[in-house]
Amino acid sequence: MARPLASSFLDTTIRKIYPQDSDWREKARKRLSNLTMPHWALGDLMDLAVDLAGITRSLTPPVVRKKVVVMVGDHGIADEQVTIYPPAVTTQMVHNIVRGGAGINALSRQAGADILVVDVGAKDDFKDLVQNGAVLAKKIGHGTANMLHGPAMSRTHAVMAVEAGIEVANSLAQEVDIFATGEMGIANTSPSTAISAVITGLPVAGLTGRGAGIDDARLQHKIRVIEQAVARNQPDSKDPLDVLAKVGGFEIGAIAGLILGAAANRKPVLVDGFISTAGALIAYALEPFVRDYIICGHASVEPGHAVLFERLQRKPLLQLNMRLGEGTGAVLAMNIVEAAVAVLTEMATFDEAGVSTAEA
Amino acid sequence: MARPLASSFLDTTIRKIYPQDSDWREKARKRLSNLTMPHWALGDLMDLAVDLAGITRSLTPPVVRKKVVVMVGDHGIADEQVTIYPPAVTTQMVHNIVRGGAGINALSRQAGADILVVDVGAKDDFKDLVQNGAVLAKKIGHGTANMLHGPAMSRTHAVMAVEAGIEVANSLAQEVDIFATGEMGIANTSPSTAISAVITGLPVAGLTGRGAGIDDARLQHKIRVIEQAVARNQPDSKDPLDVLAKVGGFEIGAIAGLILGAAANRKPVLVDGFISTAGALIAYALEPFVRDYIICGHASVEPGHAVLFERLQRKPLLQLNMRLGEGTGAVLAMNIVEAAVAVLTEMATFDEAGVSTAEA
Repeated sequence: MARPLASSFLDTTIRKIYPQDSDWREKARKRLSNLTMPHWALGDLMDLAVDLAGITRSLTPPVVRKKVVVMVGDHGIADEQVTIYPPAVTTQMVHNIVRGGAGINALSRQAGADILVVDVGAKDDFKDLVQNGAVLAKKIGHGTANMLHGPAMSRTHAVMAVEAGIEVANSLAQEVDIFATGEMGIANTSPSTAISAVITGLPVAGLTGRGAGIDDARLQHKIRVIEQAVARNQPDSKDPLDVLAKVGGFEIGAIAGLILGAAANRKPVLVDGFISTAGALIAYALEPFVRDYIICGHASVEPGHAVLFERLQRKPLLQLNMRLGEGTGAVLAMNIVEAAVAVLTEMATFDEAGVSTAEA
Repeated sequence: MARPLASSFLDTTIRKIYPQDSDWREKARKRLSNLTMPHWALGDLMDLAVDLAGITRSLTPPVVRKKVVVMVGDHGIADEQVTIYPPAVTTQMVHNIVRGGAGINALSRQAGADILVVDVGAKDDFKDLVQNGAVLAKKIGHGTANMLHGPAMSRTHAVMAVEAGIEVANSLAQEVDIFATGEMGIANTSPSTAISAVITGLPVAGLTGRGAGIDDARLQHKIRVIEQAVARNQPDSKDPLDVLAKVGGFEIGAIAGLILGAAANRKPVLVDGFISTAGALIAYALEPFVRDYIICGHASVEPGHAVLFERLQRKPLLQLNMRLGEGTGAVLAMNIVEAAVAVLTEMATFDEAGVSTAEA
């Protein structure tokens, strides 16, 4: 894969990403096969347990300390009426999250996950919130440029966005067992769709969804805007940093970085919806082995999402017709991850329980 | 629906089952529509929250006290080599559950759910376990008769099995917020398939699955055995108690009763896999309004399961290629139910949070 890496930090991180440990996968598979149930009767939970053993090199993968990182950015393309929410909602929702009233708060409390809000590219500087520690400032820019008229950001800024995500992962790795990706950024399904179209080579129209809830007319408009942005910028589909720079977003780059950083630290990372998975696609294009650390939380109703799962060869754990983002689908799936560990660690084997096995 | 009720207790229970409260559904819908997210962006979680409000007549539906009831029974049809596990495994697995080593134990601990094991029709009497309170004795018979040669049980015993389940629900209703159904009984996918075929009118072959894991040859044999059992007994598809008696099982009847009892007490009930859903089908045939109280936990890999969801017009919350039973898919879904309540009760409205709503 042609990828002229602009950064030694990014490059160093990528060099630390190895595939899952096949010995530990095998040990987990052996234990799971001897547990008191018909062969592999807990299906995907057991596959997930094998992954977690392979990621963490342990038969008791730790998944207690959970952190969802909400990357925040604004988008120049919001000027083009691709969404029904005003850009100010990015700022308002950050305040809502900080005060505990957003969807991600309710579901994180339920999951026992901590939330970290990181400003990588909002228009607002959140001065008070940064000062009191409620928001971590890793700002690359005050919103992206309007990709309809040129690149969303420079290549240098794209690298910086990815590196910001890696830095967050590195700084938290000692205190976190499992990461989850989240985001907040009005209009960010548009760059996510553009990234998906460029990297998969599929037409924009089939990948574009209603985001926060646009009507048919606005959907057609959104498709045209994204098509024009891609045509204007001609991103190199083989160069993920070029794609991110030309039609991406700061928070999408930071999500890619968080995923790369999690993988480099051998931590599982739960990926949320369409925007997060576009970030995962950038990370995967930079280093395909990140896939071994990615757990897809849920299938969004955004039509582009299914295509990304196919590309990543990952199956989402939940399908609940959700399309909120913020990290909600990732934290909702954390219980499934914990359940997979419970199966691996708490069930008795046939021998231990004195239960007869199936006929040979 | 022609249903000559044999029992005044069963009849009394059925008379207590009302549809969900539409006023409380509407109140929940209104609150959910004003929460800080795009309209209905948490999809199925929000539909579930509306159901829970309608069931419990509350905007803060209680779901803290969770109980999974594992109904235990043996099956005469196990003599026909329809499964690869010896019938003794029913007893062995009850001991495994009591000692805490089964799948249902690991997943119930994870879900914060208590387990109650109820013997309604095992061959074993579990004397010690009944004495020390680990198993509740509600035994109707020592395993069903072999339905290949005649009815699995008498109509009187079928009613008794259903009533045993109702009694369990009634006795627990004051201390339980949400029920889950579970079962243990070697060979019980065979009666479940027979019930499904009779009530839906669909051919046995398309509904029959591999249960605990039989091979192709044994699957063909299992299909023939079930077809012959149905042909031999000619159950009246319009009379659920006749179906239960002729081709059912004690634990399946008790599951039907637990569901009826939960509905009569206005408690939500999470229904597990194929066997539990066959029980739900019996309950639904006795009183269609039970559907308003049923939450389907997961879609089993058993091919008959999808047909039952269609019949019940209920969508399962999880699809994780599971086929263990015991109640595992029901307790695994409890977190989704709690998350739905968290959305309803913990998120801020647009007004409260000062977040701009979408353009008109």
